[in-house]
This record gives sequence, C-alpha cells and structure tokens, in this order.
Amino acid sequence: MRPGVEVAFTPRTPRVVAARRLQRRRDRDATGRFLAEGPQAVREALAVPGCVLELFHTAEPRHPDLVAAAGDRASPVTDAALAALAETVQPQGLVAVCAQLDVTLADGLAHRPRLVAVCADIRDPGNAGTVLRTADAAGAGAVVFAGEAVDPYNGKAVRASAGSLFHVDVVREPDPAATVAALRRSGLRVLAADARGADDLDDLADAGDLAAPTAWLFGSEAHGLPAALAELADARVRVPIHGRAESLNLAAAAAICLYASARAQRSTGR
Amino acid sequence: MRPGVEVAFTPRTPRVVAARRLQRRRDRDATGRFLAEGPQAVREALAVPGCVLELFHTAEPRHPDLVAAAGDRASPVTDAALAALAETVQPQGLVAVCAQLDVTLADGLAHRPRLVAVCADIRDPGNAGTVLRTADAAGAGAVVFAGEAVDPYNGKAVRASAGSLFHVDVVREPDPAATVAALRRSGLRVLAADARGADDLDDLADAGDLAAPTAWLFGSEAHGLPAALAELADARVRVPIHGRAESLNLAAAAAICLYASARAQRSTGR
Repeated sequence: MRPGVEVAFTPRTPRVVAARRLQRRRDRDATGRFLAEGPQAVREALAVPGCVLELFHTAEPRHPDLVAAAGDRASPVTDAALAALAETVQPQGLVAVCAQLDVTLADGLAHRPRLVAVCADIRDPGNAGTVLRTADAAGAGAVVFAGEAVDPYNGKAVRASAGSLFHVDVVREPDPAATVAALRRSGLRVLAADARGADDLDDLADAGDLAAPTAWLFGSEAHGLPAALAELADARVRVPIHGRAESLNLAAAAAICLYASARAQRSTGR
Repeated sequence: MRPGVEVAFTPRTPRVVAARRLQRRRDRDATGRFLAEGPQAVREALAVPGCVLELFHTAEPRHPDLVAAAGDRASPVTDAALAALAETVQPQGLVAVCAQLDVTLADGLAHRPRLVAVCADIRDPGNAGTVLRTADAAGAGAVVFAGEAVDPYNGKAVRASAGSLFHVDVVREPDPAATVAALRRSGLRVLAADARGADDLDDLADAGDLAAPTAWLFGSEAHGLPAALAELADARVRVPIHGRAESLNLAAAAAICLYASARAQRSTGR
C-alpha cells in the first residue's frame, strides 16, 4: 500500500464480514453491536458518545462531514462491500457499526420520565421502530421492549425509528409483569391500550386523568395485549372507534394515546 | 363432469388467469375490478351490494358461510390456483374479484361528510391503506386519493385498510387543487398537515377551531405536501414535536390530526 492511499475493503475483508453478520440477531446479541445505515442514522449515532465503533463509506461519500466526524473509525469500502452491508438500496454510501445503547429499566426510570411507552410482545420491526419514533416525538423519555418483543436493533426497526433509537432511553426487559411493577413503584400511572378496554380515551382526557406521569402498554398487532398483563394496569383504555373500522393498527393507536397524554401533561402546566 | 361435482379451477383456467391479472394496476384500471383476499375483506365486500363479482375458494374453505353467501358467484379452485391469485401466504382459502367502489368527489360530498381525509401524492400502498383505516375509525365519511396517489385498489393498500375500503366513500381525483376548491365549496374547512406549518394542532384544538366540518390534506411520506397545495388550505397545521424526533411518519401524523378533529367535533355536541 502506498502511503496516504487507503485501500478500500471488499466484501471478503474480515472486518466487513464481521460487520455483515450483525444483520442477524444472534450476532447482534452475542456482540452487543448493531448496524445503522444512511446519513440520518449515522449523524444521530455520531452524536452519542462512544456509540459509533466503525464507519464504512464508499470512495466518494455524499456526506464527507460525517466521514470526517468519525475520524479514524472511518474506513473506505468498495461499492460491493457497502451493498453487502446495507439492507436498503439507497444507504447513500454509509453504514456504521454501533454499540447497543439500551439501559436497564432502573436506569431509565432514574431519569424520572413523565411519559413511557412499553411495547409488549410487538413482533413487527417496522411497528417497533415507528412506536419508538412516535414516542420520541410525543416527548417520552423511555421506550421499553418487554416480553417476546422484536429486537429494537433489527435493521428495519432502526430504519423505522428514523433516529429516535438514539434519542430516548431504550430498555429491554423480558418480564412484562416486573416491568409494570417497576413503573408503578416509580410513580407512573400504568395505562393499557386495549381495544376492548372499559375506559374511553376521550373520557379520561376530559376528566383530567391523563395529566399524571404515565406509562402506556401496547401489545402486538396480531394479538393485542396479553390479558394477564392488561389486568396489571391501572386502567384499560380504548381509543374510541367512531366509524365502522373494527380497530386501529398498533402504530396509529399508539400515536393517539401518546399524544393524548402529551397534550394533557402540557395543558395542565407540568 | 359428473352432475353435482364441481371441478376445481386450476391456475390455467381462463377465469383464474383473468383474475390474476388484477394484481397489476393496468388491468385493474382497464376492468374496474380488483382483488380482495381473506375472510375479513371478503365479508366486508359481500356486505356491499354488487361488489363481489366472483369468489374463488379452496375445496374445503375455512369459512363456508362466506362461500354460501356468494351463491353462484363462488367457484372452487385448486390450492395452486388460490396461491397464484393471493398475494399473502395465508388468505385462508378465499380470494374475491370485486367491482371498484369509488365515487365522484361530487357524490362523496353530497353525503355531507363532517370529516374528510385527502391523500395527495401518497405513494406507499401500506400508508394509503392505513390512512383509510384510521380515517374510517375516526368517523370520516370520505377519503380522497388526489394527484399522483397510489391506487387504493393495490393489494397491499386493500389489506392495510383492513376492510375500511368497503366502509367509507373512496374518491379518486387527479387534480388536487380542484379537490380543495370543491371541499371548500361544500362547507369544509381545509387544513393542511404540514410539519413546518404555522399553526400548532393543540392550539387550534384549545381555540375550538377543530370542531367545524374539516378536510385534512396529507402529503407523501418522502416529500410532504406540495407547497402549492398547502398554500390553498385555510391553515397549515403542525403536530407538535415535544422530543427530539425530526418528524412523525405519515400514518402517525394522520391518526393524531384526524382524532383531534373527531374529538373536537364530538365534544362540542355536533
């Protein structure tokens, strides 16, 4: 190699091979790492100290500022290597290997969030990422992936979160019941979003019941919240259905519930 | 053929071949037909007089009530034929050929809807179907697909609508500006959902400005509303972002806006 000329990694370069394995959950779990692709995610990741471990970029990156910010963590790769690392067609020449960011539930609650979203058994990574993004927008401080929930570091979840994975406290807690108990001990009112719930969301809002610090429980698109978990909540709340739809999809219901809380918490002057 | 024994259609039977072509927009546009698969969609379609033209079902359908309701429109098909007709892995043995249902904007407005959703240039069929489902749940009477919007009869849109395609007045109107003019002539307040809008959704709700009959304009996920269209609205409204997310996704923003209107319209005693 001539001095000053970096040789681009190929798909067979060991570091690229190792990074590519992070497309699989098994390897993400084993290494505590994940992949973030495209300029938006890479920019957000770079803003979190210690998060970006490696940044792979094509020879003429469209975002030289991000490559410069990564310093000696950045390495040029061939177009073929970038295509092998990326799950989308248009990662705009950037894929980062990141350290997983999740905190324990105790650490997340130590930040005293006034709004928390709990994804229990959510299996679809697009839904998981969308709920994370919506929770961030609504001002939630933490999002808990509980029970058999999808891996929030799944590539599709990372992309759907649109950077919010890097903004809020992400918690992974296998035991949903223990999660509810800890949330309540921390002073949060626990509300279960449940299409067959006894309480109407608008009635709770009218009664001023949404202004308290609140954790929302959301279940899987296919099965809703497990009954045993919904029963642990302080209330089971339904979003009213005014038309003839049977139900809302998970992401829409979560948006309506989280924003109802955000509005109530603000209109009473937190 | 022995009397009383129906021979199941194969993938090469002309009626199956013709139905399968409806997976393509060109053939849907040319014939005015589309496909609905699975028991939920078929049940909703059968409830609309004249909508189901043919119902293909496997030899031992899991929903014999729906096959019976289709009468002589029902035909048994081989598993291979059903697999060829279906776009999902689990259509539960049912695919219907349906007549397209959309009405003109004038006819939709003649029903005097108090809440309307306009999807302008929405390209993703999953988003289009989700907005349709959410609009139905919020009590909207009509959903307008304007401009270069995706075909609402796209298979993925039909599935994401979860039956709501059969509940609300669906309108296809190529000219978005003409749509806005007609909505306003019909007495609807036209609000543009716009992440950079001057008005905050919560402020409008607090001021009682959402109780009037309202049409919401939603733009594409990638590009938002075209500026020329947003300027035609009575107000450009942003959903407040309380956290660090840059924006909400289209379906989440639409859910929050439509439900804010639904609540305001009801709390003032429509």
